[in-house]
Amino acid sequence: MPELRRDPITHRWVIIATERALRPQDAFAQAVSPISKTSPFAEGNEHLTPPEIYAWRPAGGRANGPGWRIRVVPNKFPALRIEGKLDKAPEGIYDRMNGIGAHEVIIESPDPEFTLQGLPHDHLVAVLGVYRDRMADLQRDPRFRFSMLFRNHGAAAGASVAHGHSQLIALPVVPPAVHELMDGARRYFDFRGRNVFDDIIGQELADGRRVVLETPHYVLLAPYASRQPFELWIVPRFACTRFEATTASQLESLAPVLRTALDRLARGLGNPAYNFVIQSAPYGKDEAAWYRWHIQISPKLTQVAGFEWGTGFHINPTQPEEAAAFLRGLPA
Amino acid sequence: MPELRRDPITHRWVIIATERALRPQDAFAQAVSPISKTSPFAEGNEHLTPPEIYAWRPAGGRANGPGWRIRVVPNKFPALRIEGKLDKAPEGIYDRMNGIGAHEVIIESPDPEFTLQGLPHDHLVAVLGVYRDRMADLQRDPRFRFSMLFRNHGAAAGASVAHGHSQLIALPVVPPAVHELMDGARRYFDFRGRNVFDDIIGQELADGRRVVLETPHYVLLAPYASRQPFELWIVPRFACTRFEATTASQLESLAPVLRTALDRLARGLGNPAYNFVIQSAPYGKDEAAWYRWHIQISPKLTQVAGFEWGTGFHINPTQPEEAAAFLRGLPA
Repeated sequence: MPELRRDPITHRWVIIATERALRPQDAFAQAVSPISKTSPFAEGNEHLTPPEIYAWRPAGGRANGPGWRIRVVPNKFPALRIEGKLDKAPEGIYDRMNGIGAHEVIIESPDPEFTLQGLPHDHLVAVLGVYRDRMADLQRDPRFRFSMLFRNHGAAAGASVAHGHSQLIALPVVPPAVHELMDGARRYFDFRGRNVFDDIIGQELADGRRVVLETPHYVLLAPYASRQPFELWIVPRFACTRFEATTASQLESLAPVLRTALDRLARGLGNPAYNFVIQSAPYGKDEAAWYRWHIQISPKLTQVAGFEWGTGFHINPTQPEEAAAFLRGLPA
Repeated sequence: MPELRRDPITHRWVIIATERALRPQDAFAQAVSPISKTSPFAEGNEHLTPPEIYAWRPAGGRANGPGWRIRVVPNKFPALRIEGKLDKAPEGIYDRMNGIGAHEVIIESPDPEFTLQGLPHDHLVAVLGVYRDRMADLQRDPRFRFSMLFRNHGAAAGASVAHGHSQLIALPVVPPAVHELMDGARRYFDFRGRNVFDDIIGQELADGRRVVLETPHYVLLAPYASRQPFELWIVPRFACTRFEATTASQLESLAPVLRTALDRLARGLGNPAYNFVIQSAPYGKDEAAWYRWHIQISPKLTQVAGFEWGTGFHINPTQPEEAAAFLRGLPA
């Protein structure tokens, strides 16, 4: 059973994920060649994953067989397990609980070589719909307080399977970085009386230097305090705190914005590894007045080094204005 | 001039380090081959660095010439600059200040192939003394509130020069991760009336499973809530909040503990990339009752992925008990 352990000083929780154990004898090999060659996520290999939770089969077909276009399965080596009780308990001065949570894998295409930005429009819209629907489903479990959809593309971004996929984790606790976002947005609202995301959009559109794309419903921008080179955010121009609550038409118009972001990073920077996360509010914290879901995209061009690790500060060697100008200037 | 920019939501500061600019056209090359082949830090190449701040020349010799055993120089591509004023100012809804701070490089040996654990005892003790003395010197500048000594070993740990070296940064603000540590240690003291580091040492020595080495003055352990596989901490058994205040005899007895940690990681895990940081209290926060400096060592065996990035949670696939047992069991 995976375990959640709390640091006695910072109260930061860590997931000790014993079911994906990295043993000492594996550590070296893992560090050198983290990506496996065969695809357990390809069509015809459905038996290599746990039974599916959901699949999109527009032409029909039976569960766990071929014919799917998008497939959702439990993670075979989950960081958290769905069954069981939290069993919160002390361990001397320390605190622990069982690693209860959902950990799903969303395989957005059966093609082992696909990229998200290369999917046809309808397929990409369907992908966004699956993200939303899986998040909405997990929200019904009363043990969970928060879920996060994230995507690791490339070994440098932490992907352990080369076949593209996203992951969805639901947690019994609200993570510190999410608390920080929520508290910060709330503090801004209390102090200035406006939604900080509206103010960011207002200033960025008036300024223009950090904007990569503006559409009627979204702004794609390089944030003012980008933590990493070419970090991008997709911020909705409409009020909505949780990604689960987005409408079909809002997803429809999100697809080309996400495509633009990933396509320009791939073409401009030579297909870099990247992470993206959908930052959505924790359950029961739906204050549209001061928060808004958004997508944070971070290509992995630099390593997180000792200074970042020890201080929480980031050192970013690329000006966001320069990054945005470069991406904006690429041919469409 | 480098710039400190504050995120309007989380209030996290980011250093936009324009003097080490990663331009779009460099990004791809940088990501693929981050380590340069020639050593600007080797003996005879003193002209390739800015003029030295300090050097240990046990056999004499003139500044910026050969004959040194340890050399400290300003970083040629500093994330921060020592000259100038902070000039704190708004930029619309955002906040910025000039990137004022010190950024020094400590080259612990003229041998481009050296490892810290391979240095003779007296040399390693001298290295620790240089770390301490440089921190003590920077503390005298009234613009600074905090300094951090850190070491990136290997490209995966963020090192951009293969010749081993450490870095020292002094900052005009206290970073968030340091606030978190200090606040947490204070909260523990307020609640339980004891120094959390004393309680950690007491429980770890009684338990034994996470201890790698115990000496009269230090404990080397895998922390209960290790964020990464094989994370190690060196915790002093004596009261001392700031590394600058350690005595010569305390440094003398630290050297073999640091050597054991780095040597066992290198032998046990195939010379992994690693970071270490000396976590020392900010200036004017010397509360020995509740805080203590310590060293955090983190081999880079896994990538920080989207989940960690988005939540601040870490997923660690190796049990600290297993990591400690493995390192403890290696021949001395």
